[in-house]
Amino acid sequence: MSQTQPARGMRDFLPSDIRKRKYVIGIIKEVYESYGFEPLETPAVENLETLMGKYGEEGNQLIYKILKRGEHEKTGEADLALRYDLTVPLARVVANYKNELPKFFKRYQIQPVWRADRPARGRFREFYQCDVDAIGSKSMIVEAELCSAVSEILQRLGFHDFVIRINHREILYAMLDAVEIVEEKQTDALVALDKLDKIGSEGVLKEFESRGINKGAANKLIELFDELKGSDNSHILASLSEFVGNYQTGTQAISQISQILKLAVLESLKIDASLARGLSYYTGAIFEVNVPDLSGSIASGGRYDVLIGMFGKEEIPACGFSLGLERILFVMNERGMFPSELETNSADVLVTVWNEETIGESLQLANDLRHQGLRVFVYPETDKLGKQFKYAAQINVPFVCILGEDEIKNNLVALKNMHTGDQETISREELARKIKQQ
Amino acid sequence: MSQTQPARGMRDFLPSDIRKRKYVIGIIKEVYESYGFEPLETPAVENLETLMGKYGEEGNQLIYKILKRGEHEKTGEADLALRYDLTVPLARVVANYKNELPKFFKRYQIQPVWRADRPARGRFREFYQCDVDAIGSKSMIVEAELCSAVSEILQRLGFHDFVIRINHREILYAMLDAVEIVEEKQTDALVALDKLDKIGSEGVLKEFESRGINKGAANKLIELFDELKGSDNSHILASLSEFVGNYQTGTQAISQISQILKLAVLESLKIDASLARGLSYYTGAIFEVNVPDLSGSIASGGRYDVLIGMFGKEEIPACGFSLGLERILFVMNERGMFPSELETNSADVLVTVWNEETIGESLQLANDLRHQGLRVFVYPETDKLGKQFKYAAQINVPFVCILGEDEIKNNLVALKNMHTGDQETISREELARKIKQQ
Repeated sequence: MSQTQPARGMRDFLPSDIRKRKYVIGIIKEVYESYGFEPLETPAVENLETLMGKYGEEGNQLIYKILKRGEHEKTGEADLALRYDLTVPLARVVANYKNELPKFFKRYQIQPVWRADRPARGRFREFYQCDVDAIGSKSMIVEAELCSAVSEILQRLGFHDFVIRINHREILYAMLDAVEIVEEKQTDALVALDKLDKIGSEGVLKEFESRGINKGAANKLIELFDELKGSDNSHILASLSEFVGNYQTGTQAISQISQILKLAVLESLKIDASLARGLSYYTGAIFEVNVPDLSGSIASGGRYDVLIGMFGKEEIPACGFSLGLERILFVMNERGMFPSELETNSADVLVTVWNEETIGESLQLANDLRHQGLRVFVYPETDKLGKQFKYAAQINVPFVCILGEDEIKNNLVALKNMHTGDQETISREELARKIKQQ
Repeated sequence: MSQTQPARGMRDFLPSDIRKRKYVIGIIKEVYESYGFEPLETPAVENLETLMGKYGEEGNQLIYKILKRGEHEKTGEADLALRYDLTVPLARVVANYKNELPKFFKRYQIQPVWRADRPARGRFREFYQCDVDAIGSKSMIVEAELCSAVSEILQRLGFHDFVIRINHREILYAMLDAVEIVEEKQTDALVALDKLDKIGSEGVLKEFESRGINKGAANKLIELFDELKGSDNSHILASLSEFVGNYQTGTQAISQISQILKLAVLESLKIDASLARGLSYYTGAIFEVNVPDLSGSIASGGRYDVLIGMFGKEEIPACGFSLGLERILFVMNERGMFPSELETNSADVLVTVWNEETIGESLQLANDLRHQGLRVFVYPETDKLGKQFKYAAQINVPFVCILGEDEIKNNLVALKNMHTGDQETISREELARKIKQQ
């Protein structure tokens, strides 16, 4: 007897899980398509070299590696790996199909990714990402439309309390310049600042110290963040302008942020000067979407104008968002946000079988009903009718058809409404209509 | 610069590919759901021990193995593997969730599988399977409904020349008994007979010889197959009854086949006494679906009443079909069977931007049109109008909206029909209706 559980950190999705997942994915697709985004799918497996070195040292450790075909355990050598995110495969695709894809390639991609992480509540080794990216333009129209699409998806799913936090990598670097953190230490400083929410000011100060960064610099930044907390966007913009006014890249970035705010016209869009984002490939605006009852983000994104150039001959600008499907589902489950229709069952009607001789009649009736758009479950055995009814109740089918010898002779059907218990004998022509009326 | 191609034997699916795949998958889902089948999804990654030993020696070699987390190349040890088919994961799921699943669990599953095979024309290392299985009943109603569902899918996709070949493992064993092939050699004999189509009578005779099976026995079988070729089902049934009449399991199997033929009422269902099927886990009826212009099958299946018992404490009967999505797509592409609507593009209308100051107006108009159900592409840069039109023509959008300063002032829009070249200035209220009329 083999083990029957899925591998650790992985999940089986039974029909009731799939219904919820499909509902959310359906809305995501519909909104993205309304913005002119097109679907893309890439293989689960990539060449190992495509992924290595793209996610930082910690990322490299979390990549699942696949043994070389034919050699397997003999050499222990891996040449393939499981997809770690959807952004690196996109960059590879854009570089590879440059001549086939439109200049402004807008794509969405909803596929699983795998990470050899320690499983925890809400953290899985296989999980879905829903990415949307616009390739080929540096215009802030791209950022505005992405924020607007993400906001519409969340609203249509029933979220009304989310915040889209926005910041800009160049504002961050200008702030680090302004407090005189040298360039070589800036990446370390960003990694530490990114954890402010989780580890607090004390924690950030400690990290700065351990990385040999001037604590005074950290204090100035944390003071600024404290001062700006809860301020409105225009106040924050003014303060930031003052803080980084001497740095041209900083002022440019501030004007990009104001442009995004102006174009997107979203109540939910708030500047957060402390937002840093972990991933190294961002070059411009960065985003994180939060709801009050979840500590992590439910979506995040940003502009990355250099990554695609790592795969091709030329730099191609890009900006995107990734929705965390598992986290969205988690919050929706907790809050009971799914429409009740999703709880319906596998079939609209169960057709019973009377005896061995009449099975053909039951199958014929089932096919007639299917051609009229109904989902029909034929009871597969010639059990006693009572047992067939019991099963129909168990799987929660709203109607049962009985096709006994009398009914067959007179071209009639007995239809039982499983909710009311009423049973009536009607003509076959009326049958589908009666069931659909429910 | 990294390599930009997908890993060998794997494929990227660009938007036009996805549209075709979704079209076929959509019909498969719809028909299966109309028969009361429910969706199931399992992880891409299984514990290695779940898969090993389930697919025979050749299968074991083709399983992609994943290095142990944390250890990676250090030990070369693998503890996980990529899903090789959808049947073994189903058996695991049925054993694991026995108490949550209905007694007659009818599920479909449409997911990729991975095989470390040598890539060839039409043979990939990542490919989709579309499986449908009915668990929990030994009744031939199950076989009849499966054949009927598969037939309906193929017809709705536009196939009218397919044949569902049917045979039975117990008829095969009874035939082997009848020609006096000893039990220990029967599996070998079946493997050889399974190749009759590919390697011909001569090839089969050679294989029999090399495996030490009596050539006379092989000759008798091949004679029988030759004699039955092209006969109608009732003639074949009569001949088979005669051939295996002394073996109880054989006559039972023949009566099961006649029952399936009677219940399914399908012109396309033909007995093929030489059909053996490679997989070892089949125990009853077996099926293969072919079209004239493809040498392999486009679907196959059968009854396997023992496999689930390998995972759980009790034997649970099961029967299923697997549609070969890649092969179906291949034939549909070759024959040009896709509806022309699938060639439509990413958006119904492109909204141009006039200048920096009017971008907000263009975005607003785009959102209004989206809320009226249209897919809208906003040109992301303030290029010259000519360039924006050229792009619209390139991506084949049927309509373009122009929102200049005059139009904005008067709450109008200029709408250009890209097919006719006509341009008219209309009110915003009329806009969506005009575009949808097309």
